Amino acid sequence: MRTLIIGGVAGGMSAATRLRRLDEDMEIVVLERGRYVSFANCGLPYYVGGVISERSSLLLQTPESLAARFGLDVRVEHEATAIDRERKVVHVTDLRTGRTSEEQYDHLVLAAGAAATREPLAGSVPTRTLRTIDDVDAITAVLADVTGRPADVVVVGAGFIGLEAVENLVRRGATVTLVQRGAQVLAPLDPEMAAPVLATLSSHGVDVRTGTTIAGAEAGHVLLSDGTRLAADLVVEATGVRPATELAVAAGLRLGPTGGVAVDELQRTDDPAIYAVGDGVEKTDHVGGAATLVTMAGLANRHGRAAADAIAGVPTPARPALGTAIVGVLGSTVAMTGWSESRLRASDRPHRVIHTHPTSHAGYYPGAEQMALKLLVDPADDAILGAQIVGGDGVDKRIDVIATAMTAGLTASSLSELELAYAPQYGSAKDAVNLAGYVAENVARGVTRTLQWHELDDAMTGGATLIDVRSPGEHAAGGIPGSRNLPLDELRTRHAELPARQPVVVHCQVGQRGHTAARLLGQLGYDVHNLDGGYLTWSAGTAARSADRTKAAG
Amino acid sequence: MRTLIIGGVAGGMSAATRLRRLDEDMEIVVLERGRYVSFANCGLPYYVGGVISERSSLLLQTPESLAARFGLDVRVEHEATAIDRERKVVHVTDLRTGRTSEEQYDHLVLAAGAAATREPLAGSVPTRTLRTIDDVDAITAVLADVTGRPADVVVVGAGFIGLEAVENLVRRGATVTLVQRGAQVLAPLDPEMAAPVLATLSSHGVDVRTGTTIAGAEAGHVLLSDGTRLAADLVVEATGVRPATELAVAAGLRLGPTGGVAVDELQRTDDPAIYAVGDGVEKTDHVGGAATLVTMAGLANRHGRAAADAIAGVPTPARPALGTAIVGVLGSTVAMTGWSESRLRASDRPHRVIHTHPTSHAGYYPGAEQMALKLLVDPADDAILGAQIVGGDGVDKRIDVIATAMTAGLTASSLSELELAYAPQYGSAKDAVNLAGYVAENVARGVTRTLQWHELDDAMTGGATLIDVRSPGEHAAGGIPGSRNLPLDELRTRHAELPARQPVVVHCQVGQRGHTAARLLGQLGYDVHNLDGGYLTWSAGTAARSADRTKAAG
Repeated sequence: MRTLIIGGVAGGMSAATRLRRLDEDMEIVVLERGRYVSFANCGLPYYVGGVISERSSLLLQTPESLAARFGLDVRVEHEATAIDRERKVVHVTDLRTGRTSEEQYDHLVLAAGAAATREPLAGSVPTRTLRTIDDVDAITAVLADVTGRPADVVVVGAGFIGLEAVENLVRRGATVTLVQRGAQVLAPLDPEMAAPVLATLSSHGVDVRTGTTIAGAEAGHVLLSDGTRLAADLVVEATGVRPATELAVAAGLRLGPTGGVAVDELQRTDDPAIYAVGDGVEKTDHVGGAATLVTMAGLANRHGRAAADAIAGVPTPARPALGTAIVGVLGSTVAMTGWSESRLRASDRPHRVIHTHPTSHAGYYPGAEQMALKLLVDPADDAILGAQIVGGDGVDKRIDVIATAMTAGLTASSLSELELAYAPQYGSAKDAVNLAGYVAENVARGVTRTLQWHELDDAMTGGATLIDVRSPGEHAAGGIPGSRNLPLDELRTRHAELPARQPVVVHCQVGQRGHTAARLLGQLGYDVHNLDGGYLTWSAGTAARSADRTKAAG
Repeated sequence: MRTLIIGGVAGGMSAATRLRRLDEDMEIVVLERGRYVSFANCGLPYYVGGVISERSSLLLQTPESLAARFGLDVRVEHEATAIDRERKVVHVTDLRTGRTSEEQYDHLVLAAGAAATREPLAGSVPTRTLRTIDDVDAITAVLADVTGRPADVVVVGAGFIGLEAVENLVRRGATVTLVQRGAQVLAPLDPEMAAPVLATLSSHGVDVRTGTTIAGAEAGHVLLSDGTRLAADLVVEATGVRPATELAVAAGLRLGPTGGVAVDELQRTDDPAIYAVGDGVEKTDHVGGAATLVTMAGLANRHGRAAADAIAGVPTPARPALGTAIVGVLGSTVAMTGWSESRLRASDRPHRVIHTHPTSHAGYYPGAEQMALKLLVDPADDAILGAQIVGGDGVDKRIDVIATAMTAGLTASSLSELELAYAPQYGSAKDAVNLAGYVAENVARGVTRTLQWHELDDAMTGGATLIDVRSPGEHAAGGIPGSRNLPLDELRTRHAELPARQPVVVHCQVGQRGHTAARLLGQLGYDVHNLDGGYLTWSAGTAARSADRTKAAG
């Protein structure tokens, strides 16, 4: 029996090595168009930045090492050009010699990945994506050529890879402009969660230009669609990817509604001899149950392994995908899993929103960092629909705990009951995740009523009084227009100063004192809501909205 | 209505503040024997070490701040001396004046905590536990009195608090001897997992003496039961705690089999007006379902809140307790959840054992730290029974993910499917937890057969050939006696050199190459096992056993 695998990076290589461990007799041939197999594609930006200093660190395996250890026949610079499903052969071109051949298969695994979506650009400025070792070689060569001044680099696309490129170009000392077609950086995030990321970028000197794109180039400059002319030694394109499905389409394999190759839960296409895995393939979405595209190395590896299991006769059905993702941006960490509020709204899916701002570990132990944590919850059954976290230390831990809870089907309220490891340098007796669970439980039970940042204007127009229950010092340092300061610790004695028979909205810095205030006033008979996430969430949301409006007006 | 709360730290204060948020009309009186309420008891060791430099950081609340914010009547230095259940009154002594009084209650919450188990010691060396602010004041005073040389400190007890004390005394420059009655440090860990902790302590100059205890003291010295005489300016006692149940016993409340106060899932004692929470109270064990004692701040807080919920008429049943715990020891991190192998064995409970040594993040990104991860699995249903992790960065994250999976009832195999956040500075495309899941799945399916470190001698005595599949360099740098080196990458061509018809055990450094080798040889017809956890686990286990034997012989 012979298995042919097209694509030799994450998904393809996981399929190949797993298949060998399960079947010593299988002939396994891996065809890779590029010059390298099994390279660390997620490490490429960090090689540009010099964090990874040895180019060899990126090369995890070679055809020779894979032959010795796994008995694989790995052929780099070999491109699969067509699949003849009837004869079960793949047409292959050796890119070094131009020679073509046919390769027979019993099982075929497509792991062709995704292709960059590139914006057309007149070629007078060097332009690269950041997807291959050839890309990073070209980028570092351009940067090395600029001497005596910082290189001017324009990064197009403020997604995960774009931000990793920005961070590493800043690390290299370049002057970086980030150009983003949409209204905000990190489009998968909700606007109030993306706002602090924009602030981080700006504070590191990155010139962020949203709502625009590159319109053209001339010697040493690019022109933006908004008319701006920017000096540019280099353009790094990171505008996204689309499934590389040319081979599959030409072979008549079924694509799904997203444009990715359609597969069943065992990674089989509609041809029983052909499996497909990785960035070119549809996944089933955990939240919606529909087909979705998630381009993550973890899923590619897992599904590559699953394809091998199916071929070897020990099938392991795939779980639906959450889309857990994380990115480091100039000292801050941004992570998400599941759906955003924007996506839930666009799908008219009912949801509750919870914002908290817990610390990474006990506040009394030095070095605690505050994070912004957003939880999306299904009001019908308290299921967790998604989470977003922006902060520093400990963000990765909390997103992993929430992703695990989602996979397992724990309710949002039950996050309060997780027994997480606590010593003061690692967490809190009431951990960040527990606190989010407590808020979820309070909201679910009706113990608290919250108001979202974008609902505040309407509430105040409708006659609500806004009370800032923080200290006078905090209020003076920055408050919400129209709010009145009445510190929490004086509320029990001074609440009679509030206008009777009018709705009240209370707010504090992060939402916690506001909750105590809302409970107090509610029991005293007031019609009260707590501003969810407090001043911090309101500020972030308002900043995002005003940036958006400025852009629309301009 | 009036609720009386005895104990004003974690559990008691959580009950008080939650109850106020739920019931503005309730009269809430908190009686605290000590001078402080709501102090950061988990921070005390770090104040000794100077990590927490401001004493005020430890004082989270005062009676005044709690009165202003929550309308609580908090009375420090007030000791509850008896409970008259019939009259629903508590007898109270004001420790400052000696005056006694009676306090009436409708609901009573016992949060009296635990008491240190102290070993009797002749008093010529200052001796303190590390449980109160008075303790740290006394300890720092003794340390400050020793000038011109390092202070000699003997820490008794190598549990979590003992190790935190050691770390912080080392940080202060003291010469530290750690005396432990049992055979190993961190008794809740299995011996091969505790071995690296002992190595860490020794490498930092801590003189660790196991299998002994303090027998006496004389001016400036302590005498150990093994005859050793140690210079000592100070003894810090951390030999453990027992539930403080004197009040409950005198009041005729029911204790459970563990000696803690027995409560139902709503924290009610057998008197419907009396609740009990915290370190003095039994929990239900997640793994065994039996009553257990777990003295963790997180559970105390949660159960305090639950008692308030029950009093306020919005009951929230407690989940069983895992006993998740973590401790930092001189740069390394040790964490555990659920049961250990030792405990499973002592209970004759069937279990599978898995050892892995994954890295904290992608190996190609600088700073990845290796950890030792042990997973205990129920062979009947693949349930996770426990986990232990020893390493540095990322240990806290992995124990939290596994604890969440345990709470949710995920199987060990399904850890492989968790969609955890991956970028190279945070994790791996196949995260440490995923890898443990893959091993669990391989073992559950019979894809791999493993042998434990302590089973190797018997296997070799029984005629098994031990093959080290690492590189010749690794083998030369340290191998298992009697092993033969046959590198994995040559195994496919050289396996005929192996003796036919004899069982084979393969091993590598951590177990991963061994797995590939075992799959290869198994398919070639050999009767093969992979040494679980590889050379690292075997070394740790062997070191633990030889330390134990030396002690027994000596």
